Amino acid sequence: MSYNLLKGKKGIIFGALNDKSIAWKVAERAVEEGAEIVLTNMAVSIRMGTINELAEKCNAKVIAADATSVEDLEKLFDETMAHFGGKIDFVLHSIGSSPNVRKGRTYDDLDYGFLQKTLDISAISFHKMMQVARKKDAINDWGSIVALSYVAAQRTFYGYNDMADAKSLLESIARSFGYIYGRDKKVRVNTVSQSPTVTTAGSGVSGFDGLLDFSERMSPLGNATADECADYVITLFSDLTRKVTMQNLFHDGGFSNIGMSHSAMEVYSKGAEAEQK
Amino acid sequence: MSYNLLKGKKGIIFGALNDKSIAWKVAERAVEEGAEIVLTNMAVSIRMGTINELAEKCNAKVIAADATSVEDLEKLFDETMAHFGGKIDFVLHSIGSSPNVRKGRTYDDLDYGFLQKTLDISAISFHKMMQVARKKDAINDWGSIVALSYVAAQRTFYGYNDMADAKSLLESIARSFGYIYGRDKKVRVNTVSQSPTVTTAGSGVSGFDGLLDFSERMSPLGNATADECADYVITLFSDLTRKVTMQNLFHDGGFSNIGMSHSAMEVYSKGAEAEQK
Amino acid sequence: MSYNLLKGKKGIIFGALNDKSIAWKVAERAVEEGAEIVLTNMAVSIRMGTINELAEKCNAKVIAADATSVEDLEKLFDETMAHFGGKIDFVLHSIGSSPNVRKGRTYDDLDYGFLQKTLDISAISFHKMMQVARKKDAINDWGSIVALSYVAAQRTFYGYNDMADAKSLLESIARSFGYIYGRDKKVRVNTVSQSPTVTTAGSGVSGFDGLLDFSERMSPLGNATADECADYVITLFSDLTRKVTMQNLFHDGGFSNIGMSHSAMEVYSKGAEAEQK
Amino acid sequence: MSYNLLKGKKGIIFGALNDKSIAWKVAERAVEEGAEIVLTNMAVSIRMGTINELAEKCNAKVIAADATSVEDLEKLFDETMAHFGGKIDFVLHSIGSSPNVRKGRTYDDLDYGFLQKTLDISAISFHKMMQVARKKDAINDWGSIVALSYVAAQRTFYGYNDMADAKSLLESIARSFGYIYGRDKKVRVNTVSQSPTVTTAGSGVSGFDGLLDFSERMSPLGNATADECADYVITLFSDLTRKVTMQNLFHDGGFSNIGMSHSAMEVYSKGAEAEQK
Repeated sequence: MSYNLLKGKKGIIFGALNDKSIAWKVAERAVEEGAEIVLTNMAVSIRMGTINELAEKCNAKVIAADATSVEDLEKLFDETMAHFGGKIDFVLHSIGSSPNVRKGRTYDDLDYGFLQKTLDISAISFHKMMQVARKKDAINDWGSIVALSYVAAQRTFYGYNDMADAKSLLESIARSFGYIYGRDKKVRVNTVSQSPTVTTAGSGVSGFDGLLDFSERMSPLGNATADECADYVITLFSDLTRKVTMQNLFHDGGFSNIGMSHSAMEVYSKGAEAEQK
Repeated sequence: MSYNLLKGKKGIIFGALNDKSIAWKVAERAVEEGAEIVLTNMAVSIRMGTINELAEKCNAKVIAADATSVEDLEKLFDETMAHFGGKIDFVLHSIGSSPNVRKGRTYDDLDYGFLQKTLDISAISFHKMMQVARKKDAINDWGSIVALSYVAAQRTFYGYNDMADAKSLLESIARSFGYIYGRDKKVRVNTVSQSPTVTTAGSGVSGFDGLLDFSERMSPLGNATADECADYVITLFSDLTRKVTMQNLFHDGGFSNIGMSHSAMEVYSKGAEAEQK
Repeated sequence: MSYNLLKGKKGIIFGALNDKSIAWKVAERAVEEGAEIVLTNMAVSIRMGTINELAEKCNAKVIAADATSVEDLEKLFDETMAHFGGKIDFVLHSIGSSPNVRKGRTYDDLDYGFLQKTLDISAISFHKMMQVARKKDAINDWGSIVALSYVAAQRTFYGYNDMADAKSLLESIARSFGYIYGRDKKVRVNTVSQSPTVTTAGSGVSGFDGLLDFSERMSPLGNATADECADYVITLFSDLTRKVTMQNLFHDGGFSNIGMSHSAMEVYSKGAEAEQK
Repeated sequence: MSYNLLKGKKGIIFGALNDKSIAWKVAERAVEEGAEIVLTNMAVSIRMGTINELAEKCNAKVIAADATSVEDLEKLFDETMAHFGGKIDFVLHSIGSSPNVRKGRTYDDLDYGFLQKTLDISAISFHKMMQVARKKDAINDWGSIVALSYVAAQRTFYGYNDMADAKSLLESIARSFGYIYGRDKKVRVNTVSQSPTVTTAGSGVSGFDGLLDFSERMSPLGNATADECADYVITLFSDLTRKVTMQNLFHDGGFSNIGMSHSAMEVYSKGAEAEQK
């Protein structure tokens, strides 16, 4: 179903790997809603994943870029503007990775070289992308930039490790740059704090299945899916949300504002009984 | 411009008084987007304002109801469902009034009868409306309820008086009922925390013009207008935001997350200089 | 053990019922730290509880007062100032009760007369107390006022019912009045958001034992006890925290900023397994 | 005046440069309250500042350490434990510096090497310190760790630049490590979000004087001084706050929860008038 919400708009989608990726769903929905897009990811992710399939479906150009490389980002924006013959209107940043998590380093035994990489990939890349875009004046007035985040930026989830710190940094960058980009160019910058989602990235986190079940039962509307997230992101790219900026927006079925639900407590109480036997 | 975002949907709009009201703008935009609506307000407000003009324009039925009266609310939902031949999909609650503010009682000299009225009109009416709707099962699954709030619920603005407490209570009710309505019927409940807006209600607050200017200069995108608020509320009524619930969503050009902007500081510094002379 | 932190200070403690009450512990600790106190509660609670025992131990005067009655509060402050021969330095507000909870009315079937009582007893009484104190100029400069709250003011806990809304209102009143009392008299106003505590009041909430266990396992330091809460409140009454105001301070072993702990997840996972059998 | 709140306790104070430093005041107050301390700073800061004067006054050992160097931190904890003949009880982290700010790079023209340094010095050093302490089991059960932060971690202040992001990261690290250190060793970890303070570090921020004045007039109790901050930190090191952890605690005269004060608005309005002439 299409509402033509993004008719005539152009954008860049970072981070689509395969058809489980939220970025993949956003790309599909953006095109359905009338947008033209460029897809980008690391060269290695392009080879490993199936992004070319998506590109064909979406009639989109794919440009390889390492989002931690200012040089690559410059090339990306140059080629994108050449491709479209002008500026763009929206960007999705859906990038996150922690070498500490992947290598099994716990939070009290972090490798600081890895931590620097976690922050660079998952948060600072967001700043780099915006700084490059801003310097090249690559985004139209009233454009919209969205990055994906998670509630671990506010509250500690065991096992989420240094990704929590990266998400806090990401959300801070959204505020800090959102002030400048809004003031100077009317471009808005927000983060969407999404339910835990079964993606290739999400699955890496330890104890992910248990968390998914807990989160599902805590949330009155259940976890938000990748498809639903794409719908929501579309509204943030549309002209109907022009004055929303510097916000972290929870798209999580209510999880963030639940302390304890009846449904989760039923399960917990069964566990507590089992414990006592 | 219409996207048909609310095609086939039905709703009730509380609180339209005249064409400056946010509720008025939401009503217009909802109809543009394909919705059918019922308008409601107190009998006295219907007489004082120009809601019948809006009703004609929107082909909407007007039903008088005092939102603090459970009996009136029951009648409202009964008549609305009879009118539409079925359940509704969305509700806007845009109601607020403080007798203490109107009578010039400062916050350290509140009349407690007035305070009770402030809370009843501005916050508890929101609970009453939802409890009545819930008992009558008047809202379709995946319906959407929005109430308008203000950042004074989080931070103190001198002169906003007991309306700050009413807005805190309102936002708490949104969370508390949002849990239950979401769990049982998949209905989402959110508040939109809107920029100070030049409406008949907003103008009552002391020092409103100064605040409007300060808020405009603090917000990187400037204050959000009533028209822009209507656009935003439409996205929250649409099917694209189904998993957003129990949230307070700032629609304020970034004000809520600004500590000090360059533009506001310029003005402040001039004042500080003038002060020292 | 005593540090003489409150030497020479005088205060009023609202809400001690029996030796499980947080207010009881605060009274004991305040006196240990060198303060003189007046104890107050409803006449019926004085009869039901054992406050006279505490009064004897603390060498404290007991003055019966209904905290929802402005007249009673005026009498309380008059008699207290007469008793001490001057102004006071601190106040503890530890009052909360919901007729809806007691009568088993669920949140989607509230009695609105009861709701008004919940808000009046649990939140508005805090405003009334401060307004009376302010009008009588009963509190010394740099005095300190504390009310007890709970994290349900921020996040929904099923079964906590309309007490959640009352706590939100209470915290808003602390901010609103804190601004005025600070500006005019340097008196600070804060709320302490305490772990669920086994008191006569706390036990009334449905599913309280399960919540206590969950909260214990979620909190890295475990739930805070009533004794520990008293220690913390003493620091807020002391001269060492003079610039802390308008805050809601979590005293909860870390619960408020935990999304999921390892320990709670172990129990939850056992429950989830049991569920699937 | 002393209450003997820290009698028998031992701690390390990071970041005292000269007698304007908050860390300097905390060191003095800790010793007054009965603690023994070790002072640490970069070798260059020890030479530039007057820390040896403080050391003499406090009868404290000074150990040079670069807080971004794990090796230096290991040496620091080893020598400290050797010096005291055992574990310590508290740590103050008062470290922050932004090469981007010092070199006049604006937030939309950051040098990413500098950004990495800002984060390493101002935030990651906090993690390194705790990870080293944890591995060496250098802190007694129920110990207390405090880092100094600023409200820019939550809201954007123009000119505060990448220090805002560093403070967000710092506060996230406090939560993340606070969970682990609390769970395993009952050690609590908090940040104190202090008013802008006239220190050598604070003065570096652009437009600092204007901000100081604005902050003073917004805060009902006025800005908190370095001396007052020291008093507050002492309470957090004492045994009276054992269950407070993973929190960001505002010590700011109320600023954080003020939207607009009467006093600041007076100045602002004068500036707005001047503007219009």
